[in-house]
Amino acid sequence: MQTITPVILCGGGGTRLWPLSRRSRPKPFLPLIGEESLFQQTLARMSGDPAFAAPMIVAGRDHCALIAEQIGDSSDWQLVIEPAAQNTAPAIALAASLLPPEAIMLVCPSDLYIADPAAFRAAAKAAAGMAREDYLVAFGIAPDRPETGYGYIERGEPVGEGFRIARFIEKPDLAKAQEYLASGAFCWNGGIFAFRAGHLLAELAAHRPEIARLVAESVAAGRWEGHLFRPASGPFAAINAESIDYAVMENTRTAAMVGVDMGWSDIGNWRAFGDALQGLGDDAGNIAHACRADFDECNGVLAVSDGPRISAVGLRDLCIVVHDGEVLVTTREGAQRVGKLPGAANQT
Amino acid sequence: MQTITPVILCGGGGTRLWPLSRRSRPKPFLPLIGEESLFQQTLARMSGDPAFAAPMIVAGRDHCALIAEQIGDSSDWQLVIEPAAQNTAPAIALAASLLPPEAIMLVCPSDLYIADPAAFRAAAKAAAGMAREDYLVAFGIAPDRPETGYGYIERGEPVGEGFRIARFIEKPDLAKAQEYLASGAFCWNGGIFAFRAGHLLAELAAHRPEIARLVAESVAAGRWEGHLFRPASGPFAAINAESIDYAVMENTRTAAMVGVDMGWSDIGNWRAFGDALQGLGDDAGNIAHACRADFDECNGVLAVSDGPRISAVGLRDLCIVVHDGEVLVTTREGAQRVGKLPGAANQT
Repeated sequence: MQTITPVILCGGGGTRLWPLSRRSRPKPFLPLIGEESLFQQTLARMSGDPAFAAPMIVAGRDHCALIAEQIGDSSDWQLVIEPAAQNTAPAIALAASLLPPEAIMLVCPSDLYIADPAAFRAAAKAAAGMAREDYLVAFGIAPDRPETGYGYIERGEPVGEGFRIARFIEKPDLAKAQEYLASGAFCWNGGIFAFRAGHLLAELAAHRPEIARLVAESVAAGRWEGHLFRPASGPFAAINAESIDYAVMENTRTAAMVGVDMGWSDIGNWRAFGDALQGLGDDAGNIAHACRADFDECNGVLAVSDGPRISAVGLRDLCIVVHDGEVLVTTREGAQRVGKLPGAANQT
Repeated sequence: MQTITPVILCGGGGTRLWPLSRRSRPKPFLPLIGEESLFQQTLARMSGDPAFAAPMIVAGRDHCALIAEQIGDSSDWQLVIEPAAQNTAPAIALAASLLPPEAIMLVCPSDLYIADPAAFRAAAKAAAGMAREDYLVAFGIAPDRPETGYGYIERGEPVGEGFRIARFIEKPDLAKAQEYLASGAFCWNGGIFAFRAGHLLAELAAHRPEIARLVAESVAAGRWEGHLFRPASGPFAAINAESIDYAVMENTRTAAMVGVDMGWSDIGNWRAFGDALQGLGDDAGNIAHACRADFDECNGVLAVSDGPRISAVGLRDLCIVVHDGEVLVTTREGAQRVGKLPGAANQT
């Protein structure tokens, strides 16, 4: 049986976990939960299972040193260096162009937390089976709350081990999100996809011929250096950045999904980080994450520090983060706005 | 006309402004509001006015270096070193014993903030006039809120430029405090007193003969070293610590008060500190005290830092204090409990 090639996307900065995540060390490369970084966990989730081939990593130049440092002794990987950050459609197309057309690629962002790796692997195998039949398969995450920060996908007719996708829905308002949660027919778009490489490129060419052409040029004029592939930067820089969702998934007639409940979190902000640590706190839900913290009459407080002790009195549902000369205090509701703070937005 | 001798009390630690105030540098010696420390402001409040004599300072051994550092070039002062912390009655009695019996002493804690020094000086002169008539005169602070953290004094018959004190009242509950505020006949006991030295000692001998005797022994066996007086430690250590309020003021028939409205604050906790800075904040009442702070949808937040930037999102009525490896976040209501935190209570 044909193996599945993990395609690990390391692009994207993200500022909402500031001041812990910085431009120089973004979220995938931080040991947020556990000893290993999210990037290392993403690799480890598949490395022990013979169903998966060696990974292909797609990342910007700035993060090559971090990747080499974190990937350790393994030599069984390839790294494609994005000449510019152009969102996910061009990044995925680069990887697809370097694989045989029959290869089954499993596209995984490197900044997700997944509590149940076995459920992830089972879903990956189901999705790979459908990808072989030329479906473009998204992971549909079973929602557990009326989240307004994610895109949703609506389940259609059953097909293979999953469903066709009836439609993609942008971040909804709260009323809609509550409706989706109640209906049971909606999932979060988890950002994980299984494709046959040749089929993905054909669909990209059909719906975004300009992106397909420029990626092909960039690969044709690129060069291998050992494990590393360097696409030509000229044509790649000329691409209009677009996500795989907009460029292909919302346009193809072959969109499908597998439903999965695997303790998924994008750790998209400090609130989500606290949620992912649920159960690790004290009786009142206060969590001291890898630091000394004293809580007096507090409830639902998350304390994160790289050294200084945090002392809290009378607080409810706050996140306190102390890191490298910056102190952030935010409500859970305010966590979405952290990226707009001067400290987060004006990093040099 | 006889001058008034300021007697500046530097005893007392206080832990409720932790982590800014530490055992090694307690509240009087911090530049909390303005460039000068509260101790320096206490001296400056009287030093330019010919009605006041050179000050006599009473302090523990641990703080002599701080006092010498902060008092600067002036040589016109005396320092009495308390052999042990025994509360205010013994400390005041030490000073009274070293002054001529006819001297008028104005007892001032060194950790008060007073926004209107002219009003203070006017009240001091009025109180001194009554002290010459052998009243023991307390400063009665006009209350502006139903504060439950202070003792109250009730105004009696008019006498001199003030009133007799009808009674002293311990920290009341909120209902009582509201009643006192509405009645207009009650003031806060501000901790500032004017006494004729000989009369104070006579009243102490009448109501607390043991304290009077041990202080007299300690002074008799003490010695001057230049500006410094060192009482003998044996008898002083044998005293049962007691405040001047309990030991004398509540027992004497000569208790009187002058009412004064002078922007008094004991800066007893972070809430009081924020209140003393009122008007210095932004339109939403957020204050960045001597630090960089960014507020996003915050109201009534006090930020104090010795370096790290503070970024706050969505907060209401909190105090955030970053100092020397400690981070405190407390509600205004919780500020009273800061002293009980492990960080504040277990200082070495």
